[in-house]
Amino acid sequence: MDATPATHVLPSSCDFTVFGGTGDLALRKLLPALYHRDLEGQLPADYRILGVSMSDLDDAAWREAVHGSLQTFVAAEQLLTPVLDRFLARLYHLRLDAQNPADWDRFHALLKERAHPEDAVRVFYLAVAPRLFGSICQRLDEIGVVDERARVVLEKPIGHDLASAREINEAVGRVFDESQIFRIDHYLGKESVQNLLVTRFANTFLEPLWNSRWVDHVQITVSETVGVGGRGEYYDQAGALRDMVQNHLLQLLCLVAMEPPTYVGRETVRDEKVKVLHALQPMTPEAVDRDTVRGRYDVGLVDGAPVPSYSDDLGHGGSRTETFVALKTEVQNWRWAGVPFYLRTGKRMDRRASEIVVFFKEPPHSMFPGAEGVTAPNRLHILVQPDEGMRLHLTAKEPGPGGYRLRPVSLDLSYAAAFDARLPDAYERLLMDVIKGNPTLFMRRDEVEAAWTWTEPVLRRWAGSPDRPKRYPAGTTGPTAAAMLLERDGRTWQETDQ
Amino acid sequence: MDATPATHVLPSSCDFTVFGGTGDLALRKLLPALYHRDLEGQLPADYRILGVSMSDLDDAAWREAVHGSLQTFVAAEQLLTPVLDRFLARLYHLRLDAQNPADWDRFHALLKERAHPEDAVRVFYLAVAPRLFGSICQRLDEIGVVDERARVVLEKPIGHDLASAREINEAVGRVFDESQIFRIDHYLGKESVQNLLVTRFANTFLEPLWNSRWVDHVQITVSETVGVGGRGEYYDQAGALRDMVQNHLLQLLCLVAMEPPTYVGRETVRDEKVKVLHALQPMTPEAVDRDTVRGRYDVGLVDGAPVPSYSDDLGHGGSRTETFVALKTEVQNWRWAGVPFYLRTGKRMDRRASEIVVFFKEPPHSMFPGAEGVTAPNRLHILVQPDEGMRLHLTAKEPGPGGYRLRPVSLDLSYAAAFDARLPDAYERLLMDVIKGNPTLFMRRDEVEAAWTWTEPVLRRWAGSPDRPKRYPAGTTGPTAAAMLLERDGRTWQETDQ
Repeated sequence: MDATPATHVLPSSCDFTVFGGTGDLALRKLLPALYHRDLEGQLPADYRILGVSMSDLDDAAWREAVHGSLQTFVAAEQLLTPVLDRFLARLYHLRLDAQNPADWDRFHALLKERAHPEDAVRVFYLAVAPRLFGSICQRLDEIGVVDERARVVLEKPIGHDLASAREINEAVGRVFDESQIFRIDHYLGKESVQNLLVTRFANTFLEPLWNSRWVDHVQITVSETVGVGGRGEYYDQAGALRDMVQNHLLQLLCLVAMEPPTYVGRETVRDEKVKVLHALQPMTPEAVDRDTVRGRYDVGLVDGAPVPSYSDDLGHGGSRTETFVALKTEVQNWRWAGVPFYLRTGKRMDRRASEIVVFFKEPPHSMFPGAEGVTAPNRLHILVQPDEGMRLHLTAKEPGPGGYRLRPVSLDLSYAAAFDARLPDAYERLLMDVIKGNPTLFMRRDEVEAAWTWTEPVLRRWAGSPDRPKRYPAGTTGPTAAAMLLERDGRTWQETDQ
Repeated sequence: MDATPATHVLPSSCDFTVFGGTGDLALRKLLPALYHRDLEGQLPADYRILGVSMSDLDDAAWREAVHGSLQTFVAAEQLLTPVLDRFLARLYHLRLDAQNPADWDRFHALLKERAHPEDAVRVFYLAVAPRLFGSICQRLDEIGVVDERARVVLEKPIGHDLASAREINEAVGRVFDESQIFRIDHYLGKESVQNLLVTRFANTFLEPLWNSRWVDHVQITVSETVGVGGRGEYYDQAGALRDMVQNHLLQLLCLVAMEPPTYVGRETVRDEKVKVLHALQPMTPEAVDRDTVRGRYDVGLVDGAPVPSYSDDLGHGGSRTETFVALKTEVQNWRWAGVPFYLRTGKRMDRRASEIVVFFKEPPHSMFPGAEGVTAPNRLHILVQPDEGMRLHLTAKEPGPGGYRLRPVSLDLSYAAAFDARLPDAYERLLMDVIKGNPTLFMRRDEVEAAWTWTEPVLRRWAGSPDRPKRYPAGTTGPTAAAMLLERDGRTWQETDQ
């Protein structure tokens, strides 16, 4: 544990290796993010980006693939030829079959061909299947390219349950120290998520309200309009709980619920987040039956167009995997006891939105005659995607010379409008943090395992239940049971940000 | 005291008499306000507006004067010919010399010439010098036009000290019951001032912060760019303390500081306001010397143009009257003890603005390394004029992939933007309240007298002091001493709403 705020400095030299260099994540997210940081002049002066994959591409071919990707995922006015040329010239591709020692030797040679290879901070980004994490790390160790400044980045999922997560963590941990392991959750790199910490802790006005005395309940929604598409085979092994709740939604919950750390440093925020995970109401079998809802999308209309069912996407009807989860939990500590946290996520929903809504309690007394029932409780709406921003919904007097006609209004902060600048993608921030060695926004081993510890009983109970996920038509807000989950508490899901 | 929320109904018939019918207030404010309410169909079906003045005008001539005034003070698109014709046809003028019994007989005849004169609610708006209030009321009583549904409206100032205010209140009170006396302060009719009650009490998010635990201090500023102009003779008898602080600024302070009433009713809000006035720290001689600053404008530049000094405006240099006041006070009760309220008002200032700024305390701890001193404390800005609105100033994270760069941002509610409607003038609301008999927004006798009780020791101390008001150049923020008043507490005046 660090005792003082750490300063994270940009190394002068870096080899950034992407395992899975021709994959979707690399081409759509990682390379465009690195390009943007190059454009801003923030990458180390002496850096290389090494793409590693099973594909038989030479450097030129990979550069061409990356170039094509940049043309798609970077705005035209930001694709400046000198920057692009400089960036592409830094790219190298290596075909690597993990079973082939000769390929690893060639990788070793590539890293060592620098004049002063020891100077370079080495980042190994594992954008590959998690089952390969352990063996890749072992190989990296064997070929002698892991020093104390090396870093490894692990994409989710870290395992599919507690045991497999531990296994991965053990395997990676045999090679890398925990301080060198960066488990990425791109939600944590979102500006609006970052701003949540600032809004809570750099201001006076929220924290006094941020507890069970004033907060009625919290809703966290991550809804997608897409289906599983070509990822059906992977997805069917995971499901929404593993794919979204265990990581993204619990991480958002942690940031909402955490206690103020002493300072925002590499371990302090994670210390507070893991305390929240440990405080979550355990998912006993009764709690699972009572407080969770599984769903699976059926045929329906998304944006006016008919879309297939999950079974259609999968190619068979035998699956019991959920594409939708709604659940209710509680953070059992002094601050939050009695305040429900409602989480839901799903594919093929009616809209694409990631948002946190904190509902405040009604004022203790209504003193405006005739205004009863007209007003809505105050709520703070934190928009994570597609728009990033914040809205404080409150009640105001409608102008007019009559009595007090009350009306809901909102005080708005749109990130795009307030800050006259392009919002960096979450990956841009996170990759820079990796390069600089700042793990604050990455999941620590104990966090991942605490999240699995809480999640696993749900998986077990579901697996042992004869029930199947409830069907919901694509393009809707999920199964009726999800609405009932709140209805029985006298609440409803916030379906829009207005 | 009413025990339940009162309902105030529009009478079917009304005679609205304006004493001072050819004066500035009548032509610029009262008649345009009544026209707007007529346009909205909100005036009683059977109403007349009777202008009373010393001017020798017949009905047609007064209608012409009012017509001219409406063309100036009502937006062209709202001057609809049928409404205008209807409105002007309701106007009557009577020349009245208050010393002449025959004139009063003619006024009596005018009120009685209706088919059912008893049905009409009679409003007597005294837009005349306060020294006439008592004698006019006495005459109204003598000619027998004051029944229990009659109402009298008194324009400020109610007296020039406690004794004279009591004298007026006694004289008017001999004819009218307190429930029939409407002491108008147009600041209380402002939408943003009205909304202050709603913002505080129809929402959860402010009230928990609205106390000495979280509020650092409060600033109330009413600054004007105009000088005394042609009103010099009147103004020199009054000064800024009597003209603005004793009424407008103390009323705003009351609305900020008051406890929540049981409901918003005719007496409940005024009960709470008067409690605040009674809780104000008494202005002992030492407090006056320490906590008040007087100023008087000198020559200077306003909007780039040279303007004369107060002495020039007055025509002589012998005056000791202040055109600027800044003072510090405290509401000595459980909620506010230790929280300074800084008030200031002045003529010939650098900008025209009426606003309340509530400064919250700094967060108890700064946890963002490097952000110390970068952030400003949260503050809620209530704009009263010229714009009406609300801004919550807070600290947000500046987007970017680096560390936590903090930046002040604001959550805005502009009344004009949020409500797609013309904002009614304060007088429109208040005149309707008079017609309907709703005194909630008018100053009760005990309020006025409590305000004088607090103000008078300041006047006395100043009068007995050899010091004169400190000069300040026109077009500035007032004398340096006003800045020092806050400086010695480690604070500064908020000079803009940004």
